[in-house]
Amino acid sequence: MTTAVPTDPRLHALRTLLDGRWSAVREEVREQMGRFRPVEPGLSTEEYRARVLELVHELAATKRPHAGFAPEYGGEGDVGGTVVGFQTLGYGDLSLLVKAGVQWGLFGGAVQVLGTSRHHDEYLRPIMDGELLGCFAMTETGHGSDVQNLRTTATYDPDTHEFVIDTPEPGARKDYIGNAARDGRMAVVFAQLVTRGETHGVHAFLVPIRDDAGAAMPGVTISDCGEKAGLNGVDNGRLVFDHVRVPRGALLNRFADVAEDGTYSSSIENENRRFFTMLGTLVRGRISVAGGAGSAAQKALALAIRYGAVHRQFADPTTGEEVALLDYRAHQRKLLPALATTYALHLAQEDLVAEMHRLQAPGALGTDEQAQRDLEYRAAGLKAVATWHATATIQACREACGGAGYLAENLLPQLKADSDVFTTFEGDNTVLLQLLAKGLLSEYGRRVGKLGPLGTARFAAGVVAESAAEKTGLNKLSHRVKAFAPRSADAQSRLLHDRAEHLLASLARRLRPALADGADQFGIFNDAQDHLLHAARAHVDAVVYDAVATAVDQVTDVPARELLAQVRDLHALSVIEADRAWFLEHGRLTVAESRAVTAAVNELCASLRPHARLLVDAFGIPESWLDCPLLHTR
Amino acid sequence: MTTAVPTDPRLHALRTLLDGRWSAVREEVREQMGRFRPVEPGLSTEEYRARVLELVHELAATKRPHAGFAPEYGGEGDVGGTVVGFQTLGYGDLSLLVKAGVQWGLFGGAVQVLGTSRHHDEYLRPIMDGELLGCFAMTETGHGSDVQNLRTTATYDPDTHEFVIDTPEPGARKDYIGNAARDGRMAVVFAQLVTRGETHGVHAFLVPIRDDAGAAMPGVTISDCGEKAGLNGVDNGRLVFDHVRVPRGALLNRFADVAEDGTYSSSIENENRRFFTMLGTLVRGRISVAGGAGSAAQKALALAIRYGAVHRQFADPTTGEEVALLDYRAHQRKLLPALATTYALHLAQEDLVAEMHRLQAPGALGTDEQAQRDLEYRAAGLKAVATWHATATIQACREACGGAGYLAENLLPQLKADSDVFTTFEGDNTVLLQLLAKGLLSEYGRRVGKLGPLGTARFAAGVVAESAAEKTGLNKLSHRVKAFAPRSADAQSRLLHDRAEHLLASLARRLRPALADGADQFGIFNDAQDHLLHAARAHVDAVVYDAVATAVDQVTDVPARELLAQVRDLHALSVIEADRAWFLEHGRLTVAESRAVTAAVNELCASLRPHARLLVDAFGIPESWLDCPLLHTR
Repeated sequence: MTTAVPTDPRLHALRTLLDGRWSAVREEVREQMGRFRPVEPGLSTEEYRARVLELVHELAATKRPHAGFAPEYGGEGDVGGTVVGFQTLGYGDLSLLVKAGVQWGLFGGAVQVLGTSRHHDEYLRPIMDGELLGCFAMTETGHGSDVQNLRTTATYDPDTHEFVIDTPEPGARKDYIGNAARDGRMAVVFAQLVTRGETHGVHAFLVPIRDDAGAAMPGVTISDCGEKAGLNGVDNGRLVFDHVRVPRGALLNRFADVAEDGTYSSSIENENRRFFTMLGTLVRGRISVAGGAGSAAQKALALAIRYGAVHRQFADPTTGEEVALLDYRAHQRKLLPALATTYALHLAQEDLVAEMHRLQAPGALGTDEQAQRDLEYRAAGLKAVATWHATATIQACREACGGAGYLAENLLPQLKADSDVFTTFEGDNTVLLQLLAKGLLSEYGRRVGKLGPLGTARFAAGVVAESAAEKTGLNKLSHRVKAFAPRSADAQSRLLHDRAEHLLASLARRLRPALADGADQFGIFNDAQDHLLHAARAHVDAVVYDAVATAVDQVTDVPARELLAQVRDLHALSVIEADRAWFLEHGRLTVAESRAVTAAVNELCASLRPHARLLVDAFGIPESWLDCPLLHTR
Repeated sequence: MTTAVPTDPRLHALRTLLDGRWSAVREEVREQMGRFRPVEPGLSTEEYRARVLELVHELAATKRPHAGFAPEYGGEGDVGGTVVGFQTLGYGDLSLLVKAGVQWGLFGGAVQVLGTSRHHDEYLRPIMDGELLGCFAMTETGHGSDVQNLRTTATYDPDTHEFVIDTPEPGARKDYIGNAARDGRMAVVFAQLVTRGETHGVHAFLVPIRDDAGAAMPGVTISDCGEKAGLNGVDNGRLVFDHVRVPRGALLNRFADVAEDGTYSSSIENENRRFFTMLGTLVRGRISVAGGAGSAAQKALALAIRYGAVHRQFADPTTGEEVALLDYRAHQRKLLPALATTYALHLAQEDLVAEMHRLQAPGALGTDEQAQRDLEYRAAGLKAVATWHATATIQACREACGGAGYLAENLLPQLKADSDVFTTFEGDNTVLLQLLAKGLLSEYGRRVGKLGPLGTARFAAGVVAESAAEKTGLNKLSHRVKAFAPRSADAQSRLLHDRAEHLLASLARRLRPALADGADQFGIFNDAQDHLLHAARAHVDAVVYDAVATAVDQVTDVPARELLAQVRDLHALSVIEADRAWFLEHGRLTVAESRAVTAAVNELCASLRPHARLLVDAFGIPESWLDCPLLHTR
């Protein structure tokens, strides 16, 4: 038996909801992974890497990674299914998930979306089959977040029709690159394209880094990042290029090209826009990381909740019976709001994948630039929130299992260590939230602009007045229509959307002086950075809330819907509770209402407690991937 | 050079303050540790354990561990100095710290404080010298927190004058026991003492678990907990006893004894009180863990702040220069409030150690029972708060260093993994805060009782009235004397103490119904558990605040005092900010004041930023223990 047998009809309904549109893919991956021999504990780093490489080949043999690629190269163009499949891998060994993500998502994905047929014809098939292993060499030691200012150069030499790839300074070495230390043969190298003495910004180049025997290519220095906190089955390394020559065709030239004589051309004139268009095609990586983080959090919760439901500590003085950990309010509060938010994030992730599929499946790509931008912003925000949530949740689960949670045999230590870097890679979370905030500000500017000059002025005056009132505390509830009812979905939605809107409007106002000539842009931005991050976070909260609220309405099984409504309530109210100071400060909640939110969170914890096991079972994590001594102790 | 050379006079003043009363011990340990060969990275678990054992012997050879033991056995009775020395070890390898803690603190400590001369004469010297390695076998798989209900039995057999130690059920196996899997020869085993058919509660017994050749003794089954999230230099294991016979003298009989004929006697009649008296003597372990957590947090902050001060990302659009991470407000907010709180906790720890020394140094022990209880409560609370703070801070530091923070070579991964279990061992943090809350409630009961019947009634009526007013939000500031000035130490103190008092008073009122006959004690307690934990936390916050506030007044160097006053402010205001919803809900802050707190935190982050390096240098962490590639990259 690889998965729990659904008996309770609510379990079936919730499982159907969570498995969603790509349920067949999920089932396929669950089944495939069940057939793989699991990674043995206690391997040395070298053995672990070898084992994960073996699994990558086994995965390639299932043809599952192929599905995401274009049909003309043997794929199915199932962009969404590929991400969902990746996400499902997250129930297993996260090194495999990351190594697969590097190979097929980042390396293969870059070749597919940034390259053209000359690259596709030659490389896609061996990439899909796992015969050509590669790296995604973007990050540099000195530029991890500010990738527009990478220092590696690719200078065109018109005499030989070659690009010269070079690392001009120590900070320009490619760092933390997966597949680099041991297995990669080629790398997609991001570098400043220079031709005819002019720099055209960052472009991607396909560069061989090892020969067939595995030795570094001439001019390429490869070193090993060595042991990491986790993910030690992935061989992260560093690449330094000393005037390495590659043919002109090595440029992944979908968006720009260099002619034999060195003439640069691009379908996108603006350098900035070109760069972000290229980056945007890579959004799949971020979405996959958010999904993988979700699976890791689900697995941790399944372990901690099952442990908490059977492990007992201290006797009830009335009955004399020892009380299960999960019957304690403090324990419920550690795990159940996190569980509710994990549901909401899972559903938001499903929406995000569907939107990505709509925009990026074969034929759809590039048709709606604004929708593509929105997708990128949403992916950035959800990745940040989902990975921080996973880190905090797995930590809470470890602590909730006490000493047992600290033993490797009980899986939580590795989950924690492996997933910890999810908040950093594919974009540092803080930087991603900033990216989202900037996107929201642009969109806000457009919206306000549509009001016309008079409307804009009135609107601005309103924001200023409200803001002044807030500073004095005089705005108390003046704008509110009716009292906040904690368990009303409408009320929750209103509160969360209103917070997001208000934070954005007041942010726009605060940042306006930066537009003036000679303004200290950095100073103004930096003084508002906490506000900006809060606005982005609030926006994501509203999006995530909408996903779970919509899902409640979609479930037809009445008992399952009622249960999910409680999950929605607990998610919404714990988000509101965590930021209730803001709601109080901004006249969105009265003191009595704020206290009622806390009371409702406590009540919901108690009323969901008997269903906690069912809620984690609905994730459908194969039992063989959960099985550990912790589940058998009392 | 093992430590930074103090040049700035403020550095000297702060270092003197932080090193405190036992500065000589700190210097000695810094110097000793500098002479030890550091643990090589990449060792297998077995090699790592062997290496740490070697270090334990090297440590024993320094005679530093001896200092904490009684002078008549070759020690110095320097109880406080021993804990400070232990704490200083926390700058190095945490496996050594924990293994040393098990050997001298827990095992040796139990023999010293629970045993009598017959045990001291035979065992103390070889324990101090590291010739006799031992375990502290309290925790059981089924009873980690509720140690009063351990299931292991020690049944006296009057025919042979022996105790029979037995593990009657699987959940009664001793679990997670340090020194058990590999090195321990004896264990202090906590078991229910049974004699003449009667159980007298948990007592401690000295039980040989391995013979001289290292084989398990007959009837003792030893197994290995295997790999853990961290601390893999410590050999945690499990012990199962199958009717293991030990002589009558194996009972550590300071507080209770069994005569040859099986007659039980104790100087403490009440079983409950006896148990907690025994446990109380072991408070040193908790204090040491709080101190070790502090050192780990300090080391993580030193790494992250030094990295953030040199690593630059994104250019200031006005100057074109790239901005150091630590100049971003979001980065400051991740690290600087944590730094301020680390200062405050360090100073509170110093006070705690001094009080412990006052009560437990030779001659002082047992003279003031109430003071001893208070010490235990304070230790419980500070251990919980300090270890959670360390876990969160180290996590933030890891993230603040991005990919570099994920590489083992940069020390943060091991710091995180090793210190993670500090929130669990020596008492689960949630359970410890409950212990503190219960202590506070007793003390509160005594205080209120002293008011006399009329006073108590008036007092109770006042609490009820305020509480009713709060529910409706009508209490707005009615009781406040004057506006809150964020940077006033008096105002900070008032706010933090008032919160602690109010939470305690309202908790006492909420729990009163549990005293009624037939009350559902568990239900009433559980409904208030979040309130109870909040009350305990608020109490610790007030104690910690007092420590840093007092220290400010003690520093004579004016520039150093001014700097420390800012540290105090940032600590206090970030604590207040995190709970400002409570202050708003309870009419302690107006909306304008609450927003002013956030603004002040931002301002303090900016004004402390130029001094961040100096503040971490003042910890005096030997440079050789910090040195890693992360400090040399840009």
